[in-house]
Amino acid sequence: MDASPRAAHTVRLAGPLSPRSSWKASACSMARALDVVSSKSALLILREAFYGTARFDDFAERVGISEPVAAARLRELVDEGLLVREPYREPGQRTRMAYRLTDKGAELAPVLIAFMQWGDRWLQPSGAPVQLRHAECGELVQAELRCAAGHVVNTDELDLTVGPGRPAAKPAS
Amino acid sequence: MDASPRAAHTVRLAGPLSPRSSWKASACSMARALDVVSSKSALLILREAFYGTARFDDFAERVGISEPVAAARLRELVDEGLLVREPYREPGQRTRMAYRLTDKGAELAPVLIAFMQWGDRWLQPSGAPVQLRHAECGELVQAELRCAAGHVVNTDELDLTVGPGRPAAKPAS
Repeated sequence: MDASPRAAHTVRLAGPLSPRSSWKASACSMARALDVVSSKSALLILREAFYGTARFDDFAERVGISEPVAAARLRELVDEGLLVREPYREPGQRTRMAYRLTDKGAELAPVLIAFMQWGDRWLQPSGAPVQLRHAECGELVQAELRCAAGHVVNTDELDLTVGPGRPAAKPAS
Repeated sequence: MDASPRAAHTVRLAGPLSPRSSWKASACSMARALDVVSSKSALLILREAFYGTARFDDFAERVGISEPVAAARLRELVDEGLLVREPYREPGQRTRMAYRLTDKGAELAPVLIAFMQWGDRWLQPSGAPVQLRHAECGELVQAELRCAAGHVVNTDELDLTVGPGRPAAKPAS
């Protein structure tokens, strides 16, 4: 293998992506994802949706935010297609709105779980307050980096390569 | 197995964590992690550090933020122990500061990579602009949820259980 040096923990930039100064991350998927959902309150609303919370009042209370903030965040998450709003009615009550995760919202689970395990490890001297387990076998669940061949991968074993959606380079003038 | 009903995509709350209304997520590791690093600019500075960027000017330019914002974010990331500052000197130049990832910072890689793959899937109609591959075997790398027994786990196969660091319940008064 090519063994160009890399600093600890860093990704190796491959082919036309090296050196870093030669390209702009103008279409970066992380940046786009962070434009959709980056506030703490939005991510904690998604946490609650994973925990089964559905009603407006419960989101505000369980995330610990005011009702106007909860309303604004829920509206953004619905507009972005991460949650859907559905009417529901309890006997003798007026119709209210419930929120549930879409597939698009649910696929953020690895982000939340990766944040959780990092917090467990670095910010909880007494250990994890809650743990996720695989319902079927009871074992602890982690967000981990793996390649399609099944290897667990560390950051200093990663190559950053050109993908199919990379904007074409401008021709030299 | 116990088969209590769960809504699509949601985690099942197990034992004393059910129902959700009976406890507060006051020690939540996700919330604590988001207190340390939740701004888009902080996460994109970490992206650049993974890409090998080390110099102050390069962070500001490559993240697309002003120098005062870059300085504030870098200072926070150093204060939180995610980056370390080190002096370096190029021949004939004055001493400058470089930044590199600590272990604590590097362990946020699954968060960033999970954001990236979500953005690739939901926000990039033409496909991923860049892709991470395992340097050793060349296969694509993903952040995925797996249990310690090796099973790939979906969100609706997750149980949330009490962990070792859960604050003791207050005695009933």
